[in-house]
Amino acid sequence: MNDRIARRMEDIKPFQVMALLARARELEAQGRSIVHMEIGEPDFITPQPIVEAGIAALRAGRIHYTPAVGLPALREAIANWYSKDAGITVPPERIIVTPGASGALLLAMAALLNPGEAVLMADPGYPCNRYFARLLEGKIIGIPVTEASAYQLSSSHIDSYWTPETRAALVASPANPTGTLLSQTSLAALIESVESRMGTLIVDEIYHGLVYEGRAATALGLSEHALVINSFSKYFGMTGWRLGWLVVPKNFIGAAEKLAQNLFLAASTPAQYAALAAFKLETLKVLETRRVEFQRRRDFLLPGLRSLGFHVPVTPQGAFYIYADCSQFSADSFAFARELLEEIGVAVTPGVDFGCNASRQHLRFAYTTSMEQLQEGLKRLQAYL
Amino acid sequence: MNDRIARRMEDIKPFQVMALLARARELEAQGRSIVHMEIGEPDFITPQPIVEAGIAALRAGRIHYTPAVGLPALREAIANWYSKDAGITVPPERIIVTPGASGALLLAMAALLNPGEAVLMADPGYPCNRYFARLLEGKIIGIPVTEASAYQLSSSHIDSYWTPETRAALVASPANPTGTLLSQTSLAALIESVESRMGTLIVDEIYHGLVYEGRAATALGLSEHALVINSFSKYFGMTGWRLGWLVVPKNFIGAAEKLAQNLFLAASTPAQYAALAAFKLETLKVLETRRVEFQRRRDFLLPGLRSLGFHVPVTPQGAFYIYADCSQFSADSFAFARELLEEIGVAVTPGVDFGCNASRQHLRFAYTTSMEQLQEGLKRLQAYL
Repeated sequence: MNDRIARRMEDIKPFQVMALLARARELEAQGRSIVHMEIGEPDFITPQPIVEAGIAALRAGRIHYTPAVGLPALREAIANWYSKDAGITVPPERIIVTPGASGALLLAMAALLNPGEAVLMADPGYPCNRYFARLLEGKIIGIPVTEASAYQLSSSHIDSYWTPETRAALVASPANPTGTLLSQTSLAALIESVESRMGTLIVDEIYHGLVYEGRAATALGLSEHALVINSFSKYFGMTGWRLGWLVVPKNFIGAAEKLAQNLFLAASTPAQYAALAAFKLETLKVLETRRVEFQRRRDFLLPGLRSLGFHVPVTPQGAFYIYADCSQFSADSFAFARELLEEIGVAVTPGVDFGCNASRQHLRFAYTTSMEQLQEGLKRLQAYL
Repeated sequence: MNDRIARRMEDIKPFQVMALLARARELEAQGRSIVHMEIGEPDFITPQPIVEAGIAALRAGRIHYTPAVGLPALREAIANWYSKDAGITVPPERIIVTPGASGALLLAMAALLNPGEAVLMADPGYPCNRYFARLLEGKIIGIPVTEASAYQLSSSHIDSYWTPETRAALVASPANPTGTLLSQTSLAALIESVESRMGTLIVDEIYHGLVYEGRAATALGLSEHALVINSFSKYFGMTGWRLGWLVVPKNFIGAAEKLAQNLFLAASTPAQYAALAAFKLETLKVLETRRVEFQRRRDFLLPGLRSLGFHVPVTPQGAFYIYADCSQFSADSFAFARELLEEIGVAVTPGVDFGCNASRQHLRFAYTTSMEQLQEGLKRLQAYL
């Protein structure tokens, strides 16, 4: 009776893939070879210039709290990056450095959402988005998206699903788990649709930079009202450092700072000093090599999966995921994922981790492992299916 | 209209001291000498063995995500620490590694509190505690505490303030801003009082280790239902690394893991590897030297402030704060803090940052600066007052 748990916890689900990952580690400990295509982080380590900057910061005793919204030099470096990379001006004051994109999401939702207010988001989508809204007693409207909109929300979804209680819509481009992009035109139409209803568009841009076809437009070039989430994790290869950022409209700066002070105190100091090296030319060169390698992997894995009978109707243009319809092989992708792991040592993420829209028909393949491993994975799948 | 901010933000206050700190930096930039007694983190840098372990981890490429609840080796190291330091057994499964104690507080409140449910806490107290509860639409009952209970909640407070909507009480020992301890007897009485009402006691133990008189009892030796928050920040000198932990009752392990996955993904990987060196004998030796230095500072500053006319009725036994009644000098400690900064370059934290109970009569002095600076601060105060 003392240990009763808050009601929200009934709605907040664990990552199903963690059980599979644990089982995979168990099998590996028994000597089985496992091809890991379930892991949502780059297999590369942090580029050396960033690591060296982190080490130099530690040697220099940079271990005290930074300002809650981040090191001024880092906020400026991010602003410069927007200027160089996208040709847009973002005042550093609007950039809040956070403990990972997770921190940015919490901050965005906390500043926006009243209890009972709804956020529209695509199903399938990154699962944590839902739970941040739930944490704050908001409502989550998961909109089933299909290949027709490249698994993205469109302005017609906004038209159909917006109600007086809707406060915001959240999109991601490139998206997890589908790897699809929102074109500049689609993004502009979404912004128009959301903002004309006096709503806010939250845009998850954490896979920016990891794009293999076309270009990921940033919402910052299209709206001064959008909240934009980004991260040093994926493109910059700093997952475990836990560092991200949030760009807020001018009117939110005060709220964002109060939240950062009270919820985080500040993001990691060594990580922030390390990240100052993320925009250096030598780092960017390393990152471009890696981007090309991810593209090579996608260009190998995608046709390979398709030829085996996995249905991937929209070519993923970014991130490092392929969201594949596996209904030719199984009516229950969760059971199928477990079967693939046990039978042939191939680890993938079941669709249930991303929502409930046809999720039993889908698996997510992450190409966050070497070409050799991807080849081995395809070989095993081919032999088994 | 697009940029409307959630209602909770009206109740979430910024740290007032930040404006003073900014002004202090401004004055310093103009060449003024400032004695900093407003800063809530040790002036020492992280002990060298921890820094070296962090650097070694970075060199070894330890930058990927750890399990959401933390590195198994770190959870075991913390469990061993409880065994060695306090002679109590805490299964590593109950220890959740978090991004700072801030992460631990969020996790604890999220797992416990339904909207509308109340948490009892002492006023004055650490301000963020209130805002974590507010974030989750909980109610905060700030109980005015006085010297009579050493500024701590007592079981009679629980008797008086507990209502059917109360879910939990939160205490801190040593406390911020008062530096006072809860004796083992008082803590046991609080636990009895809270748990007999089917409530949960949350105990903030982040200043454990920084104790100069008596001994800080851990709630873990007294209850299996308490939620205990701790941190590598203060005693272990790792503030900017952002690493803490939460010990949960058995029944909360699943909820805590789900929350850690969804809200944080995991705590900082380099910080976790670094912290593995926190319990090494050579680190503990450094920490003991620092504890002695803090005690020396307290033993200098406390009588100094008292002799100037600051009223400190309860001797602070731990942390690095003195909460002083300044009503002999001013009826408005916020204005007084500003005056001290402008007139004599002494920076302190106004009471308003810690609640509304006689907060205009109090200032917090942090002895997180050198003896020389403390001497200079007292000299300036003496000359001015």
